Amino acid sequence: MTTATSPRALDHPARDEITLEGVLHALSDAVRLSIVRELAREGEPLSCSHFDLPVTKSTTTHHFRVLREAGVVHQGYRGTAKLNGLREDDLNALFPGLLDAVLAAVDAQELRRSATGTASG
Amino acid sequence: MTTATSPRALDHPARDEITLEGVLHALSDAVRLSIVRELAREGEPLSCSHFDLPVTKSTTTHHFRVLREAGVVHQGYRGTAKLNGLREDDLNALFPGLLDAVLAAVDAQELRRSATGTASG
Repeated sequence: MTTATSPRALDHPARDEITLEGVLHALSDAVRLSIVRELAREGEPLSCSHFDLPVTKSTTTHHFRVLREAGVVHQGYRGTAKLNGLREDDLNALFPGLLDAVLAAVDAQELRRSATGTASG
Repeated sequence: MTTATSPRALDHPARDEITLEGVLHALSDAVRLSIVRELAREGEPLSCSHFDLPVTKSTTTHHFRVLREAGVVHQGYRGTAKLNGLREDDLNALFPGLLDAVLAAVDAQELRRSATGTASG
């Protein structure tokens, strides 16, 4: 059994297959933004179960798949745990400054929402 | 007839109603990115007919509406022409650096696509 045909090998776009449109779409959702924010904050791959998200397990799986297929996160198995890592190197090489600007924008929005008491969804 | 009830007054989110998720979604499309890029390059409001887009007129109208409803562009009438202006001040106030990073990312992607001969549509 090769890695390519393993049922546990997950598809990832190569760096040059990542598109800006796909990345922006992947980031255009509050749950996915919170995942990316947490991965950036922790600075290391995290298992899906690390995240305390206000959605069902299957919806969580969906969100991680969208992020993976857009090239925003890498997913791999360590034992039975699926680990998720931010593809910062790829994103920064392709779109310098974009990820940092989005992360700063999430922070700014969260700050405004806590100040006004608006739910952050 | 007040401005609010005029059939020609278009709905726009106030600055504090603009969300990051909405802006990123509005920007997650090649046609809409090309519109925003052109507005940023020209630096002044442009009529819809200024844009040479590879889509039908009704699809063009749809894309401008998505951009307007997300708070990315302002649309207003001057005579019979609908003029579109980038809401740079609002976006920069809410999400400093985000618009510039996205515009730089579009440029980088276009450059890569011209270098490899990939269509940009």
